[in-house]
Amino acid sequence: MFADLLYEKIEKMGNPTVMGLDPRIEFVPDSIRVAAGNDADAVLIFNLKLIDALCDIVPAVKFQSAYYELLGPAGAKTLQKSMAYAKSKGMVVVLDAKRNDIGSTAKAYAEAYLGDHHYSADALTVNGYLGTDGIKPFAEICKSNGKGIFILVKTSNPSSGELQDLKLENGYSVFEKMAQLVNVWGADNIGKHGYSSIGAVVGATYPEELRMLRKMMPAAMLLIPGYGAQGGGAEDVKNGFDDNGNGAIVNSSRGLMCAWKAAKFNGKYIHDQFCEAAHEEALQMKTAFNIPT
Amino acid sequence: MFADLLYEKIEKMGNPTVMGLDPRIEFVPDSIRVAAGNDADAVLIFNLKLIDALCDIVPAVKFQSAYYELLGPAGAKTLQKSMAYAKSKGMVVVLDAKRNDIGSTAKAYAEAYLGDHHYSADALTVNGYLGTDGIKPFAEICKSNGKGIFILVKTSNPSSGELQDLKLENGYSVFEKMAQLVNVWGADNIGKHGYSSIGAVVGATYPEELRMLRKMMPAAMLLIPGYGAQGGGAEDVKNGFDDNGNGAIVNSSRGLMCAWKAAKFNGKYIHDQFCEAAHEEALQMKTAFNIPT
Repeated sequence: MFADLLYEKIEKMGNPTVMGLDPRIEFVPDSIRVAAGNDADAVLIFNLKLIDALCDIVPAVKFQSAYYELLGPAGAKTLQKSMAYAKSKGMVVVLDAKRNDIGSTAKAYAEAYLGDHHYSADALTVNGYLGTDGIKPFAEICKSNGKGIFILVKTSNPSSGELQDLKLENGYSVFEKMAQLVNVWGADNIGKHGYSSIGAVVGATYPEELRMLRKMMPAAMLLIPGYGAQGGGAEDVKNGFDDNGNGAIVNSSRGLMCAWKAAKFNGKYIHDQFCEAAHEEALQMKTAFNIPT
Repeated sequence: MFADLLYEKIEKMGNPTVMGLDPRIEFVPDSIRVAAGNDADAVLIFNLKLIDALCDIVPAVKFQSAYYELLGPAGAKTLQKSMAYAKSKGMVVVLDAKRNDIGSTAKAYAEAYLGDHHYSADALTVNGYLGTDGIKPFAEICKSNGKGIFILVKTSNPSSGELQDLKLENGYSVFEKMAQLVNVWGADNIGKHGYSSIGAVVGATYPEELRMLRKMMPAAMLLIPGYGAQGGGAEDVKNGFDDNGNGAIVNSSRGLMCAWKAAKFNGKYIHDQFCEAAHEEALQMKTAFNIPT
């Protein structure tokens, strides 16, 4: 089941991080773009190189669906091939698509991404605004097919509080209510390490909420975006881990894809060395989180 | 701009309805499936026939993205071609994809579906759980490119109330707060008929909330799902209209696609006559809503 798979992969690699592949075309070196001849193939080659470079030190990869959808039907093929390649390299594959709909349509999304059809992610991000019957079809396929979901609880963006932080008349906030629902939805799908395949998204940019939500959802695997480019630091992120330094996975997208131009590397890398730079950055992230082994 | 386009199209046709194309493969007649040879092409042919059959009496079409995503990359092509065909036939094209993400990624979704790239819908459904900076990129492209969005306020599914109906400490519910935000987000994009291109989704299955939300969001074009198969009736739906019978558009998906097997037609149609049956059902819907002309 998904929670065990992810937990053990993190433990084995001693690294609770996930490489985010949100490839804007301008991130891809000119040399690849010229050789590929079109954007969708250029992104595919870029992805495959990064997967090759990091699959031995990073346990998981997260594809941000928007950037593939932006490339049209050819982008859908690039996504499909990139996901399959990451899987063949042993990485846990997360699709960040934040899908949500009424039950019958949620079932179609669940089958599309967590079934054994064209795209077969290990886990999918979903939005819980529609309540139980919009989540149930995802939860069911998680159970029957060994997959996982991460439900948006407290997102990393600046205005996430506009709705999510509002206080309800019972004293809880909207995001705390969502956390309670995550616990309910995940209760019957808990693996041998105590984690459920029904996880949650909590942004690194809100470290106090992250600390609180780690306690409120003791069985939820957390997917933590917002590290690095969005402003979350390593100490902020540690609020999401359990005592084993596990139970959460921290995403870095631009921080890895564009590591070659990071100020801290001080011009050490050129654009074509994006893989070497990503590798060094990934090792630094691993060191920063320093899981006890 | 989108709100004027939709308003005038509804007025001209005297029909505030939208054909939902959520084609499960089992809805497509065997004869088409055999001739097409694969699911994606079968769905494309099915869509084109329904568009041909209804474009003269129904002003708009809504594609439910999930059913195209379920068909893999070939489904993305079917969606692209179906959208382009509907547009060429003069229909207003809505993509029901309920997208949502942080600002930079929301911008990619906005460009993907409301830009002039591979898919160019007139309007997109979006989920506002992330707040203003997740909506702003959509609202901006609506303004610059004459497009629209429909933001989920009160959804049609049975458990929509779990989150959406919760009372906040200020006495409003979560969905009322979302409605207030829709007003704010849409205030600077109002057309000559008094409607904004920033609209809202409100389910036909909650007629009292629909009546209340029509008043709370006087400038929002409403997209009303849940008519027919989900249980909403014509009288329920009328709560969403203004005094001209405009300001809202009512979706029917299964009711049109599968009209041939409706009990009320009492075996009049066979599977291959799905277009004739859809046409009769569409005329009945038009009559039921009976816009003053």
